[in-house]
Amino acid sequence: MIKIAPSILGADFGNLEREIKELEELNIEILHLDMMDGNFVPNITFGPDQIKNLRPKSKMIFDVHMMVQDPDRFIPRIAEAGADIITIHQEATTHLHRSIQLIKSTGVKAGVVLNPATPPETLQYILEDIHMVLLMTVNPGYGGQKFIPVMTEKIAKTREMISSYPIDLQVDGGINDVTAKQCIEAGANILVAGSYVFNGDKKENIRKLLGENER
Amino acid sequence: MIKIAPSILGADFGNLEREIKELEELNIEILHLDMMDGNFVPNITFGPDQIKNLRPKSKMIFDVHMMVQDPDRFIPRIAEAGADIITIHQEATTHLHRSIQLIKSTGVKAGVVLNPATPPETLQYILEDIHMVLLMTVNPGYGGQKFIPVMTEKIAKTREMISSYPIDLQVDGGINDVTAKQCIEAGANILVAGSYVFNGDKKENIRKLLGENER
Amino acid sequence: MIKIAPSILGADFGNLEREIKELEELNIEILHLDMMDGNFVPNITFGPDQIKNLRPKSKMIFDVHMMVQDPDRFIPRIAEAGADIITIHQEATTHLHRSIQLIKSTGVKAGVVLNPATPPETLQYILEDIHMVLLMTVNPGYGGQKFIPVMTEKIAKTREMISSYPIDLQVDGGINDVTAKQCIEAGANILVAGSYVFNGDKKENIRKLLGENER
Amino acid sequence: MIKIAPSILGADFGNLEREIKELEELNIEILHLDMMDGNFVPNITFGPDQIKNLRPKSKMIFDVHMMVQDPDRFIPRIAEAGADIITIHQEATTHLHRSIQLIKSTGVKAGVVLNPATPPETLQYILEDIHMVLLMTVNPGYGGQKFIPVMTEKIAKTREMISSYPIDLQVDGGINDVTAKQCIEAGANILVAGSYVFNGDKKENIRKLLGENER
Amino acid sequence: MIKIAPSILGADFGNLEREIKELEELNIEILHLDMMDGNFVPNITFGPDQIKNLRPKSKMIFDVHMMVQDPDRFIPRIAEAGADIITIHQEATTHLHRSIQLIKSTGVKAGVVLNPATPPETLQYILEDIHMVLLMTVNPGYGGQKFIPVMTEKIAKTREMISSYPIDLQVDGGINDVTAKQCIEAGANILVAGSYVFNGDKKENIRKLLGENER
Amino acid sequence: MIKIAPSILGADFGNLEREIKELEELNIEILHLDMMDGNFVPNITFGPDQIKNLRPKSKMIFDVHMMVQDPDRFIPRIAEAGADIITIHQEATTHLHRSIQLIKSTGVKAGVVLNPATPPETLQYILEDIHMVLLMTVNPGYGGQKFIPVMTEKIAKTREMISSYPIDLQVDGGINDVTAKQCIEAGANILVAGSYVFNGDKKENIRKLLGENER
Repeated sequence: MIKIAPSILGADFGNLEREIKELEELNIEILHLDMMDGNFVPNITFGPDQIKNLRPKSKMIFDVHMMVQDPDRFIPRIAEAGADIITIHQEATTHLHRSIQLIKSTGVKAGVVLNPATPPETLQYILEDIHMVLLMTVNPGYGGQKFIPVMTEKIAKTREMISSYPIDLQVDGGINDVTAKQCIEAGANILVAGSYVFNGDKKENIRKLLGENER
Repeated sequence: MIKIAPSILGADFGNLEREIKELEELNIEILHLDMMDGNFVPNITFGPDQIKNLRPKSKMIFDVHMMVQDPDRFIPRIAEAGADIITIHQEATTHLHRSIQLIKSTGVKAGVVLNPATPPETLQYILEDIHMVLLMTVNPGYGGQKFIPVMTEKIAKTREMISSYPIDLQVDGGINDVTAKQCIEAGANILVAGSYVFNGDKKENIRKLLGENER
Repeated sequence: MIKIAPSILGADFGNLEREIKELEELNIEILHLDMMDGNFVPNITFGPDQIKNLRPKSKMIFDVHMMVQDPDRFIPRIAEAGADIITIHQEATTHLHRSIQLIKSTGVKAGVVLNPATPPETLQYILEDIHMVLLMTVNPGYGGQKFIPVMTEKIAKTREMISSYPIDLQVDGGINDVTAKQCIEAGANILVAGSYVFNGDKKENIRKLLGENER
Repeated sequence: MIKIAPSILGADFGNLEREIKELEELNIEILHLDMMDGNFVPNITFGPDQIKNLRPKSKMIFDVHMMVQDPDRFIPRIAEAGADIITIHQEATTHLHRSIQLIKSTGVKAGVVLNPATPPETLQYILEDIHMVLLMTVNPGYGGQKFIPVMTEKIAKTREMISSYPIDLQVDGGINDVTAKQCIEAGANILVAGSYVFNGDKKENIRKLLGENER
Repeated sequence: MIKIAPSILGADFGNLEREIKELEELNIEILHLDMMDGNFVPNITFGPDQIKNLRPKSKMIFDVHMMVQDPDRFIPRIAEAGADIITIHQEATTHLHRSIQLIKSTGVKAGVVLNPATPPETLQYILEDIHMVLLMTVNPGYGGQKFIPVMTEKIAKTREMISSYPIDLQVDGGINDVTAKQCIEAGANILVAGSYVFNGDKKENIRKLLGENER
Repeated sequence: MIKIAPSILGADFGNLEREIKELEELNIEILHLDMMDGNFVPNITFGPDQIKNLRPKSKMIFDVHMMVQDPDRFIPRIAEAGADIITIHQEATTHLHRSIQLIKSTGVKAGVVLNPATPPETLQYILEDIHMVLLMTVNPGYGGQKFIPVMTEKIAKTREMISSYPIDLQVDGGINDVTAKQCIEAGANILVAGSYVFNGDKKENIRKLLGENER
């Protein structure tokens, strides 16, 4: 089943509780939380205390995408703040296997994210340890970028690699009604979307993203 | 005149607009925004997009305290997001004079922050370029720390150094009704306070912080 | 057609204008500019201002090889200084796709460079965005190293990978009359050479590098 | 022939000379020295002076595993201290080929180490320059971790890649009588073991590690 | 009373237990442990596990001098390994007051070390929190350097600054019978010495260091 | 006697030999070489090879101002390239005394540079080891900045501190006929100037800089 994971960065920052409630009323199950550190990516967004503050306000799955250099420094606090799944970048840690084990040792699900140019073959020896692969379909941390077309090939290749594992394939960046369809066809099953969901009528926006996959 | 600058970190993160409105109704003029990057300090809070999102919701002075290594990377975006004053750490930049000039070139007021152990003499050749000195009275970025008593001596020394300049002297960390009084006596004129303001009755909390200096 | 791109590092640093004129008289079309930052490589050579100063003195293609960590910091200034093509190292940027887009957004052609041990497969998802691949046939930034023989296999493999794209394949390091021939046979079409070109009779040196491919 | 390389970290740090003598009496030929820098890995162990101090006390092969970021800074001193083979991490150096050449220029044998998640394909263009590949079968620098099962597949793949080169295949991490057997079957020929060798009867422990491969 | 703190770096690394026993028999009370990380200083020596291994072998005061960048990463483990006092460099931490609090929170005594060129005035606001100041009288981490004569002025100045606090004043580097006398006269009360103690007759060497201050 | 040290950055980069000859004909004794690494300052200019290439073309004193983080990496090569004096930034090295010793060990004179906001008191314990203090009167590495007026106070204070030592006091940044006079009056005796010297009639420009101090 295809799922939409709205990115909190698209929401009204002054009224996050209200925004979250609206998503829940639309039966959205996953909230995508884009944590940025100003070093792995040239932007800063929020950290563990903000996640902790939101946690009691929602029952959605908190899906924390750590755009953070050396994520081990923050993994225990993000887990404690209430994350349900934590994804870290293959490019952000020298000890990928170790970081994944650290996430799992906190009882939280673990995933790996790849930047657009990073080949999926880099995940070959970590697949049996993870619950999700997140493929960036734009460059993380930069605003206003368009979906990169060749990413559909990478989605397909990754789907093939993970076919014998119980791993979700999430995509993030430039997702709209057109690219969502392409990603789903190529093998993605969770779609992150920010402003596309929050600008205007959330219900209608989500419906368009799901297309024929509508529930 | 003594002023209180409530720190947004003490507010309910899911309902920042409501919290800000309440402060405005209490005639609070300054909102203290604690930006953290996970490198200069071991915590991450928020960045330019979050400030930009809040800007239209308030007319308060946005006083952005950048706990960020190499702040020049973010100064133009923080200014553009709507800051009225930006303070940077003496310990976070190799080119302090340059960073201050960069802030001022954006039309925003500039200040320097000192960690507890940093002597005020390090500011000797930058005083004529700044609008504010912020003395940390706890270690920035770490939770649950108490006001460091020897900081009152440092406040007094700093007040003496800046006496011939139009510079505000702000203090931040462990400020409550008791320490507020000590800081004011030593020479501080702007007090940052977080949970002390937001927990319980804001009006009463602010009244206690101001003490005899109440408006 | 095979082209020679003389490296400015082989020229007389006190008389660069004269050296450049001589190359132009020999109908050399490409000037290879080796920018080093002392961090990505343990040597420093020159930066944007030096390129800008040389730009009005020549009509050659300025081919800037950035041996610079986090090249995004310098790309806009190098473009503005007059580069016609900018190549960056796959090993020097976490956001390869983003850096390439940044180069192209300035109107300059973009390429990727690989250190000797880096497999060409790392370029798989960036090929449709670039104009050139530069394979280092010695380690960049270190003096007096010899052509690494196994690089001919890598040239051949890379040529195969880029065969359906309009991408130039440049080689740099230890290029002389013997290794030039090997590289050309393996699939390279632009040869960088420094002291081999500048020491002695430039015309004759270039003729020897081109061999049977002479124009 | 299968060899055991006891790791000095398993020995009694207050009596290293005695521990080394006992290994020599058991005809152990290789002493594995795990140098850690607190940056590539989150632990610090020892450096060149400690190796130099031990050198005259033993004729064993000193096999120095550098868990050190930017190893070039230390390679000459480790060689001078008396190393017979130096292995460096693929993940720790931007200029892998250069670092290997630097080791070999000192007259010492050179090897490359891979973290658990790093694919062996990253070694494709360095194989003809090295004497050993070391595959980490746990994450380096962290205590108390178990052998990662999928590493046997990686051992087999690596053995296949190096089959036409005179390269030793060493494994390190969680090696006991059971995993030793698995590694040997997959293609490893040198086994590093720490506490498993030093705790209790060294002779018996080594016998169990070697299993049917006993000399 | 003047005390000698022999540096373990002067001891025979293969027989540390024996060396330590000899010091205890000479009634030496303090063992100086020089931990180096290869980043704050260009040398690596040992870390927490080595200290932990030695701890049960001695009742001496373990005085750990951390020549480590960002010491907070290691302070808890060094404390747990059995340190009695930990000294950190003013130059190695951005949050000096915080690092000192961290040491003290583990129940261990805390001190600050200054490199030769660092003025003692940098310690002005931390004096009430520390038990020791260590003044380097050579540059830490580099071998074979001589006592820097102007350091006696710095010792005197520091002694004056700490006169109203219960703080020990330790010196380290190039200490021999001549410089020991100069340091003691200037105000030092603990002398670190390495090879001067361990080369030859330890008892006689210590006697010469103490001079007229002999017990 | 007051001396002018023209900065090579003001010269025509394509014809450095000719520019240097012209300075020599005007009896200029010192050539100021501004080496930048793109890290200590956000600009890159040149490195050891460029200095080496220019060395045989001139008999002027080569005064190399290293705007380089961790200068020890480059000091030996800069000395070997032909520097007569090397100045390093107080802010760029953790081990200032060590770096100065390293310069002097190569037979080259040594100096320390201070950024505009850095107090001269930081030099207190290094004065007996250096030949020059360079005070930046603008921020290094940034273009188009004006002389900072408060620097004249710092010049005067520094002159007072060095009065009993044989130390030159150099200033760099925004030096023209007006500010040169101010700096000389405050105590500077060597003036660095770039475009002010090279733009137009060099002889006349230098005459104006020297003013009444003309030779």
